[in-house]
Amino acid sequence: MKKPLILITNDDGIAAPGIRYLIKLMRTIGDIIVVAPDKPQSGTGHAITVASPLRMEKVSVDGKHVEYSCSGTPVDCVKLAVTKLLFAKPDLLVSGINHGSNSSINLIYSGTMSAAVEGSIESIPSIGFSILDYSFDADFLPAEKHILSIARKVLKNGLPERTCLNVNIPATNKLKGVKVCRQAHAYWADGYEERKDPHHHKYYWLTGEFINDDKGKDTDEWALKNGYISVVPVQYDFTAHRAIPLIKHLEE
Amino acid sequence: MKKPLILITNDDGIAAPGIRYLIKLMRTIGDIIVVAPDKPQSGTGHAITVASPLRMEKVSVDGKHVEYSCSGTPVDCVKLAVTKLLFAKPDLLVSGINHGSNSSINLIYSGTMSAAVEGSIESIPSIGFSILDYSFDADFLPAEKHILSIARKVLKNGLPERTCLNVNIPATNKLKGVKVCRQAHAYWADGYEERKDPHHHKYYWLTGEFINDDKGKDTDEWALKNGYISVVPVQYDFTAHRAIPLIKHLEE
Repeated sequence: MKKPLILITNDDGIAAPGIRYLIKLMRTIGDIIVVAPDKPQSGTGHAITVASPLRMEKVSVDGKHVEYSCSGTPVDCVKLAVTKLLFAKPDLLVSGINHGSNSSINLIYSGTMSAAVEGSIESIPSIGFSILDYSFDADFLPAEKHILSIARKVLKNGLPERTCLNVNIPATNKLKGVKVCRQAHAYWADGYEERKDPHHHKYYWLTGEFINDDKGKDTDEWALKNGYISVVPVQYDFTAHRAIPLIKHLEE
Repeated sequence: MKKPLILITNDDGIAAPGIRYLIKLMRTIGDIIVVAPDKPQSGTGHAITVASPLRMEKVSVDGKHVEYSCSGTPVDCVKLAVTKLLFAKPDLLVSGINHGSNSSINLIYSGTMSAAVEGSIESIPSIGFSILDYSFDADFLPAEKHILSIARKVLKNGLPERTCLNVNIPATNKLKGVKVCRQAHAYWADGYEERKDPHHHKYYWLTGEFINDDKGKDTDEWALKNGYISVVPVQYDFTAHRAIPLIKHLEE
């Protein structure tokens, strides 16, 4: 039987431990192609490169396999891979494993998830994986069997049309299982730390506090807090359908 | 009566004709504060600056009024304005007028709309305006009365919770009116033009063809094609709620 073709990318850059681990896992279930940013691209959201050209270079991070490192964003990586490297759509796209949470509102700022969303726009079954541990020493082992199982199930059954998966993994070695959830209504109470450079000019560092007012037990935040891997199906029709009748007074 | 406070930003940069026009219009209905990127930021999506500090400088583009130019993305501008410049939430946030369409799928790549979405995350009634004309000579005049009318109505009535508006303006001087719509299911068939630099290394320029398979007459693409300004209510819960029961087999 022909092995499935799996496209792998991320937003922490091609050398990050998260993508190296994902590559190792995906090799056990398919043929893989890696196209990932040449540097960290966290917080890039669904950015694309339109005003400058892109570079894409063959590299071999492990000294054995050919991979592709790209000067652009995670979304650029997906577009370039599909357009310039692959003759057919891959059977699966996986993005990550991101170092840090992409649960609830974090999704909107996430390069990891934007790569998965771009995959679903291009009709590729796509999954973004993230672990709630910013450290490059994050322990992926407890989640290994679940990551493989989710990937295998998606390869076998596909995903609902125009939908990708946002998978977040709590940083624990006592995982309780996998829950399908909705995105919690949470937000960041932003702050900026103000400093002065050696030339006495002000600059600002983004800080902030994550606030979850959503008490639902069907949310990703609940699942993660209670030791479960959260799986949220994500779509890219941003229309607030229920709001349409409420703003009809704007018609002229 | 106290004048409403209006926060203005964009993604084409503080000197772009679109934001200068919007500033002129908003001055007629409120007190304004401008915090906009110091350079073009098209295609930045919902990017934020986390790995480097931000600069924000007082400038006076017209030689009369103080405005703020920011080194970051449109979303950074909103966060910085709300956190560091304003003592209270503004009554309205307007972003644009973007030079180029942000209808249907373009929304996801749009810095203009990400600023409006960020505003709605921060509970500010927010509107992104875009005109279907990339030229810096774009003619905003035919849309002027509608832009003012939409802004006034939103100031008066607010917007449904967790919703902002994506307003697109066709490039015509024969506007038929304003339609409330849903986002069309359209996409870009991407291409990359491959070139070689003087050192014989390859680089790639993003190209592509816009494809709209959605024949609905309730979409933004239909409205724009038929001479109407399109108004789509936009929300930021990306959960594909209808897909939740369809992927329950992923639970473990």
